[in-house]
Amino acid sequence: MAKEITPRSEDYSKWYNDIVKKAGLAEHSAVRGCMVIKPYGFAIWEKMQAQLDKMFKETGHVNAYFPLFIPKSFLSKEAEHVEGFATECAVVTHHRLMADPNGGGMVVDPAAKLEEELVVRPTSETIIWNTYRDWINSYRDLPLLINQWANVVRWELRTRLFMRTTEFLWQEGHTAHATRQEAIDETVQMINVYAQFVEEFMGVPVIKGVKTPNERFAGADDTYTIEALMQDGKALQSGTSHFLGQNFAKAFEVKYLTKENKEEYVWATSWGVSTRLMGALIMAHSDDDGLVLPPKLAPIQVVIVPIPKPNEEIDAVAEKIATELRAKGISVKYDNDARKRPGFKFAEHEMKGVPVRIGIGKRDLEKGLVEIARRDTKEKYSESLDTAVAHVTELLDHIQDNIYKKAFDYRKAHTTRVDTWEDFQKVLEEKGGFISAHWDGTTETELKIKELTKATIRCIALDEKEEAGKCVLTGKPSNKRVLFAKAY
Amino acid sequence: MAKEITPRSEDYSKWYNDIVKKAGLAEHSAVRGCMVIKPYGFAIWEKMQAQLDKMFKETGHVNAYFPLFIPKSFLSKEAEHVEGFATECAVVTHHRLMADPNGGGMVVDPAAKLEEELVVRPTSETIIWNTYRDWINSYRDLPLLINQWANVVRWELRTRLFMRTTEFLWQEGHTAHATRQEAIDETVQMINVYAQFVEEFMGVPVIKGVKTPNERFAGADDTYTIEALMQDGKALQSGTSHFLGQNFAKAFEVKYLTKENKEEYVWATSWGVSTRLMGALIMAHSDDDGLVLPPKLAPIQVVIVPIPKPNEEIDAVAEKIATELRAKGISVKYDNDARKRPGFKFAEHEMKGVPVRIGIGKRDLEKGLVEIARRDTKEKYSESLDTAVAHVTELLDHIQDNIYKKAFDYRKAHTTRVDTWEDFQKVLEEKGGFISAHWDGTTETELKIKELTKATIRCIALDEKEEAGKCVLTGKPSNKRVLFAKAY
Repeated sequence: MAKEITPRSEDYSKWYNDIVKKAGLAEHSAVRGCMVIKPYGFAIWEKMQAQLDKMFKETGHVNAYFPLFIPKSFLSKEAEHVEGFATECAVVTHHRLMADPNGGGMVVDPAAKLEEELVVRPTSETIIWNTYRDWINSYRDLPLLINQWANVVRWELRTRLFMRTTEFLWQEGHTAHATRQEAIDETVQMINVYAQFVEEFMGVPVIKGVKTPNERFAGADDTYTIEALMQDGKALQSGTSHFLGQNFAKAFEVKYLTKENKEEYVWATSWGVSTRLMGALIMAHSDDDGLVLPPKLAPIQVVIVPIPKPNEEIDAVAEKIATELRAKGISVKYDNDARKRPGFKFAEHEMKGVPVRIGIGKRDLEKGLVEIARRDTKEKYSESLDTAVAHVTELLDHIQDNIYKKAFDYRKAHTTRVDTWEDFQKVLEEKGGFISAHWDGTTETELKIKELTKATIRCIALDEKEEAGKCVLTGKPSNKRVLFAKAY
Repeated sequence: MAKEITPRSEDYSKWYNDIVKKAGLAEHSAVRGCMVIKPYGFAIWEKMQAQLDKMFKETGHVNAYFPLFIPKSFLSKEAEHVEGFATECAVVTHHRLMADPNGGGMVVDPAAKLEEELVVRPTSETIIWNTYRDWINSYRDLPLLINQWANVVRWELRTRLFMRTTEFLWQEGHTAHATRQEAIDETVQMINVYAQFVEEFMGVPVIKGVKTPNERFAGADDTYTIEALMQDGKALQSGTSHFLGQNFAKAFEVKYLTKENKEEYVWATSWGVSTRLMGALIMAHSDDDGLVLPPKLAPIQVVIVPIPKPNEEIDAVAEKIATELRAKGISVKYDNDARKRPGFKFAEHEMKGVPVRIGIGKRDLEKGLVEIARRDTKEKYSESLDTAVAHVTELLDHIQDNIYKKAFDYRKAHTTRVDTWEDFQKVLEEKGGFISAHWDGTTETELKIKELTKATIRCIALDEKEEAGKCVLTGKPSNKRVLFAKAY
């Protein structure tokens, strides 16, 4: 099985597609740009959802559900917003099909044309702020802290499974606040929640930062981002949190009465992560044998394989180990299919990124041993049957840490401080990764660098210190380094 | 607050709308026929989802996700299916907006017309069976037991919150089997899962039965249903499970190789419940003071109210009770808002259907007592502080049972065996509810009865015994009674 994967060194993009396919995560559908998320891929997404949802609720948010459709006129109310999304909208124009009067199947019924076209939501700020107008009257109604799990559609010309698809699944938080500061605090809180989730659960280190004006969300005053580095040296924007100022409140006339009985516009944030995180998870850790999953998100954390096949004695030992592990909340599969050989099973579970494999063979058992195999390092060793459960329990934590550390070390090795344009180009071409460099603060220079090198400013890191310097392209003065990279 | 609800006796339909609105469950959106599910309503739906999802997984199903859009041509492949859904399809025809060249906002870009129109899924049999063709090759790939949680769109002309909306949320199971019998067994298993959920968790008794050919799902060989009775004597179809035969396998050419190496078409089922269950939940139990929730689905199971307002002593007692209840997995809210008076809070929590209220007042405390109020019966009584936690824990189970019993008794009292056409009309008009009567088995008679009385055959109950009789309308022979009712 593993041999069917294209090695990373040969074709990174093909390697990614091979893993998504062979591990049973997703596939292209018959509908242009839309994917089918297969059961194993969806099981990982469900674990992500459950943890994120918990973290949202712990920070005081509740879930709700808003319509899939947005009246065309709503989208137009915030000028920058419509500019950002108009060119990629799926538009519903009719509400009925009919038999073709000329024969030949079904056609759109021209009599069922909508008075106003409906856009399939590319994001929900407009429909939600139109709703909030009725929900918010006074300071007592604030803050409003709402999240929605939903599908959204952005008509993409070039798609890639999980990374960029016409339809994708996501969550979008939309909050309303009485003061500017409270909205900014919320924006920062949520980028921190995302960073914590991606680092602690996905095992992917991220840089927290703010976007340049040019890279901001359409309609935002400020966009916070978390940026991760993939194994090909490209950055992946993994989550964003937007401070929307009063832009949507003004577009939809959402005002509230202050304690002092004054009318004020409401302050807003929105924040989202999507099935794109699946892409980050796959790209950050996997190897040429398949998927590598952090234990905290693995649908199956431990697989037990009988060697060479199940028998009464092996079954009994396997069930005992499985029961004890499950009692600790660990998900275990006993792969006792007698039709498949161990080698086939090993390759299959490696492909699917199961973090730990326990092999149970007759000869080992006579010596009171089982075989432990780690997916992350590919190490194999014998462990006493008596200590196997305790060992595996600790090992899962250790693997979670190790996966993060590996990605962290990779990023560290692929983050380069650069001070000349020559070095900038050289590092970008030869090494890739993040480039920390001075920039003169103009959109003009930013776009020029993108045009020349395809590198974009991923963010201005929140923990970046002030430092006098000169723009790497123009030589103009700069007081802070920013992070450049080629990106997905 | 409670006074704002229209009594059931005055206008049942208005009563329902009042509750949905005042309890903060849902509201109409700016998009025709689409609803906004508000946080409190969504919290109930989340509890339903979590329990159903658990039951699906316990019966061996996994989740996946298929595209929102269905190519128009797919819908047409199963003849009955397209006939059932063509007239209520939202159709995407374009993928871009542009600035109106004549000024005046955004218009659909005529250059961005799709080659083939896409229908927003009204149900996913067609896109899923088109996908299954690639997933199923041999008997080893079967059964395929997949569920999807999704939004669907059916263009409805007359809508009602939760009961019938253009967009709604649901789950749809789609399974593939090697044999006819296995598919039938799955169909029956899932209607049993639904019945168990609706009775045990929602506290709503249901009749399990099969639909007449006229009432079958478009494309099914057989449709199983669970039918519940609402307080106005109307029936509500609450969940359906379809045996699809080989209809979709044939339409999408899905075959498998048997153990004997023969090619056979695959057998199919599909089954779904939707946010309509919210409508059933609200209608079945609520009263003129608001929502009545079964404890198993109540987002807040116990509310503690300080009387008349919080103080240090009351806070300490409340926190102690809350902590002890929470340790038992019970969700508790301590409503310590000092700005609102107890009477206001009582009405609010009654409106929201919180099953148990604990009032803590200074004078009661001196006697070692707290006040317990049940939402279902409106009883109020004193309970010793020492036994309050144990009492409330038991009380919640008792309320769950009582809510079911009340609905069961109502249904029993409103199920009438009828043998003459005169009685049929009389019972339907004067009493409503289910009418158990003989029917001659023809669609013609079924439609005639519907035309004359608006009553439809809800189902032929699975446990209905054979019994010789005469059709209530035509007098022709019949060997089994069926259940008639007016329905939502």
